Amino acid sequence: MTAERTIDQERAVTEEVLASFDGTADPRLREVMRSLVRHLHAFAREVRLSEREWETAIDFLTRAGHITDDRRQEFILLSDVLGLSMLTVAINEPKVPGATESTVFGPFYVDGAPEVPLGGDIARGAAGTPCYVSGQVRSVDGGPVAGARLDVWEADEDGFYDVQYPGDRSVGRGRLRSGADGEYRFWSVLPAPYPIPYDGPVGDLLAATGRGPMRPAHLHFKVTAPGHRPLITHIFVAGDPYLDRDAVFGVKDGLVVEAEHHAAGPAPDGSHPEGTWTSMHFDLVLVPESKLPR
Amino acid sequence: MTAERTIDQERAVTEEVLASFDGTADPRLREVMRSLVRHLHAFAREVRLSEREWETAIDFLTRAGHITDDRRQEFILLSDVLGLSMLTVAINEPKVPGATESTVFGPFYVDGAPEVPLGGDIARGAAGTPCYVSGQVRSVDGGPVAGARLDVWEADEDGFYDVQYPGDRSVGRGRLRSGADGEYRFWSVLPAPYPIPYDGPVGDLLAATGRGPMRPAHLHFKVTAPGHRPLITHIFVAGDPYLDRDAVFGVKDGLVVEAEHHAAGPAPDGSHPEGTWTSMHFDLVLVPESKLPR
Repeated sequence: MTAERTIDQERAVTEEVLASFDGTADPRLREVMRSLVRHLHAFAREVRLSEREWETAIDFLTRAGHITDDRRQEFILLSDVLGLSMLTVAINEPKVPGATESTVFGPFYVDGAPEVPLGGDIARGAAGTPCYVSGQVRSVDGGPVAGARLDVWEADEDGFYDVQYPGDRSVGRGRLRSGADGEYRFWSVLPAPYPIPYDGPVGDLLAATGRGPMRPAHLHFKVTAPGHRPLITHIFVAGDPYLDRDAVFGVKDGLVVEAEHHAAGPAPDGSHPEGTWTSMHFDLVLVPESKLPR
Repeated sequence: MTAERTIDQERAVTEEVLASFDGTADPRLREVMRSLVRHLHAFAREVRLSEREWETAIDFLTRAGHITDDRRQEFILLSDVLGLSMLTVAINEPKVPGATESTVFGPFYVDGAPEVPLGGDIARGAAGTPCYVSGQVRSVDGGPVAGARLDVWEADEDGFYDVQYPGDRSVGRGRLRSGADGEYRFWSVLPAPYPIPYDGPVGDLLAATGRGPMRPAHLHFKVTAPGHRPLITHIFVAGDPYLDRDAVFGVKDGLVVEAEHHAAGPAPDGSHPEGTWTSMHFDLVLVPESKLPR
């Protein structure tokens, strides 16, 4: 029994599996499945995957499936910590000079967040230091984008999103529209760094590989406007200690924003917050469909 | 924005993820995770994975997790239909000339199956035509292996294992030991071809790719004996229409066995089955640890 013959046997398995997709009617599905099998098999051959390791993988996926429910998505976390989510962003939302960069969507978006008026409060009771967030939605060619829809969501100062608490409270998230000159503004709370949920198999993987579960403080944006590429991104708070080791690889330099701290006193919108408050300013620059890379 | 710059951005994501494993204490875990990330990312880049396809994959894994329970293992089925299970067998149990070949373990093994005496009945009420299975457990160097432990399990004539029925019946499975000359024999039922469970996401994948869910008729063996490599294999029934398209790629020519059909009358063990019966004969040839390929 030579090593060469062993490898021939292994290659024969791969060839048989690849051929099994010959009858796939959808050419794209055939392409994806054949590529998946080739790379999955190449991985197993390269590391000489043991049966014990295979069992560990099956058990890992089973645990991930069982911990996943309406409020917890362990497979998205897995994709995030393996960098597949950010790679998918890089493939589908390549950087366009002058435009705001995209980053990971994450598992905490909720459809149908409360509508708030321009300048309204999306915190709606979420714990934290008030933060006034403002800027302009504009196009990469310079013009303002009026009526853009902004979905915004974030964790509270304890690092939890509303859906991570028992009950059905919808706080720290909201939906608004940019004004006539593309301007947007809302009150929220200053985001805090937080760990991704680490009491499941993904947390075990991070611990075993000496990686931390922390994400630097950030606020999520999803911005859509007719004729423009949808933008899914975060703004990160400058100075955060986890900016250089985001568990999900989401940080880009252009998304890091200074949070200004203010003593009690009048805010730009004429309101008078009771205590200290903060503010962040960030323009959201969209790509018109006509300028999309091909 | 050039295609080259896009690819640079994508590579940068991969490099960042690979570097995140630098602090992994266990060198084997570091090797496996880095290889997994390289191949997973290479796949996504090669097919230009779309965000919609990424979502489909997350949803597929979620559904697989939710359908998996004590009696159903969708992730093993997935590994089986992608040929990863058989590849893992090929890597870890390479063919040794003269020895019985290994094949997939499958998801239907149950620990603690009923003990039966040599010549006993493992069907224990499972529906089907009686089948007398016999042979010798021996070593590839020729000597008989006495006292080998044989675990045997199979589907009934309707294609279902006991664990696929409601209730706790343990039928169509048993554990016995080879005799002084390595001989083994037991009564069971003639195996029938059957579909792997196809009412879940793996079944949807098979349907979408024009593949069938059928496995040719087979009987599972797990054979262990001190000083020998454990053998996990099947015997397949010659003439089965699915031998050339096993959904899980488990068939090897040397594992295909003729099933002889007999009119009512005395069986080799002196018993008198009431109706027609069948028999299969197959020697189980183990590899002594001293002869294992390195």
